[in-house]
Amino acid sequence: MHILITSGGTSEAIDRVRAITNHSTGSLGKILAEMALAKGHQVTLITTPTALKPDPHPHLHLLLVQNVEELLTQMKTEVPQHQVLIHAMAVSDYTPVYMTGLDEVEKAQDLHTFIHRENQEAKISSKEEYQVLFLKKNPKIISLVKEWSPAIQLIGFKLLVDVSSEELIQVARESLVKNHASMIVANDLTKIQNGQHQAYLVTDDQVLEASTKTEIAEAILRYIK
Amino acid sequence: MHILITSGGTSEAIDRVRAITNHSTGSLGKILAEMALAKGHQVTLITTPTALKPDPHPHLHLLLVQNVEELLTQMKTEVPQHQVLIHAMAVSDYTPVYMTGLDEVEKAQDLHTFIHRENQEAKISSKEEYQVLFLKKNPKIISLVKEWSPAIQLIGFKLLVDVSSEELIQVARESLVKNHASMIVANDLTKIQNGQHQAYLVTDDQVLEASTKTEIAEAILRYIK
Repeated sequence: MHILITSGGTSEAIDRVRAITNHSTGSLGKILAEMALAKGHQVTLITTPTALKPDPHPHLHLLLVQNVEELLTQMKTEVPQHQVLIHAMAVSDYTPVYMTGLDEVEKAQDLHTFIHRENQEAKISSKEEYQVLFLKKNPKIISLVKEWSPAIQLIGFKLLVDVSSEELIQVARESLVKNHASMIVANDLTKIQNGQHQAYLVTDDQVLEASTKTEIAEAILRYIK
Repeated sequence: MHILITSGGTSEAIDRVRAITNHSTGSLGKILAEMALAKGHQVTLITTPTALKPDPHPHLHLLLVQNVEELLTQMKTEVPQHQVLIHAMAVSDYTPVYMTGLDEVEKAQDLHTFIHRENQEAKISSKEEYQVLFLKKNPKIISLVKEWSPAIQLIGFKLLVDVSSEELIQVARESLVKNHASMIVANDLTKIQNGQHQAYLVTDDQVLEASTKTEIAEAILRYIK
């Protein structure tokens, strides 16, 4: 099969030297890619420059992106060419629009004007004691996948922080329905440490449990057909 | 000599999954550390988990930090124990204080109240179309170095983006005087690419030029005594 994997975390520039990043090492994506290749699949991995990379392999095609805009462009092209998408990348929810001093914001009559502005400086001045950054929501890529390719098997991820198992599974179920996914892997940041990675793999009719990245990768690759 | 080097870029958490990062690979710090060790110096390198690291060496002591607060704590202890500080780390100017939806900010009577708030959520909700992030200026670590150790030789860095050589050198001179530094290495992000790294090494009585990271490291290590 042709499997598309995304991994790592996107980074949205504030200016030329600062960015908002989503924390992700890319290690699950590396394991997933290497395991899929070992099973004889063709793998395309979209990841970020700083993420961990799988070992080179003749059936591995690597694509690098930095931000949501670049990811969107690549996925629009790649999704229709694959039978499975395992979308493990930590994608930024918001993109910086404009940053300025608190004083300027306080003087403004209508705060909406700031979301239509753009910083002209390559490096925003750091003289002010307080600054205000306006951010705009990014398109939810997972919700567009089935528009690009109705037939693709979509495996999505949901990361929450310090919630109950019930809430985690409930949120995963909602995402499953909303995004027409085959499986949502739900995980909690507080349960990812010291080599452990607890996750619930939620499908239409079952909830599987895994407790390491290798177990998660094995369960996903067993599931896709 | 005992040389303290800082490298990489700090990262300031917005919440448990998002952070504002300062872009820096740590490669100049790696070259500096390896070259100083080869010359027989004792090196302490304070860097970040994702930065490039020097090869292990019996005279290399590695300390990892994530953010400005941790860096400040480490430097306060380390600076008085070294004869030279080469402060190449890209340090975040601002730290996130509070993030909320634009609607809430528009309703507020006094925007200053937001800089005294704190997000209680481990992962800030991503439902709003627009969000506003309030940031507070960090202490300028370079300006504190001589308070901690008046005798230390301080080599600072100044990164600007797309400015003239005259402006770059002028800004470096101001930093030299203000921070009581021995040398400021002034560089422009647009002149750091494809293996080149143009820099002006500004001291009280001269301006040296370098065009690669190796040349920068050589010039710094020749200069310190």
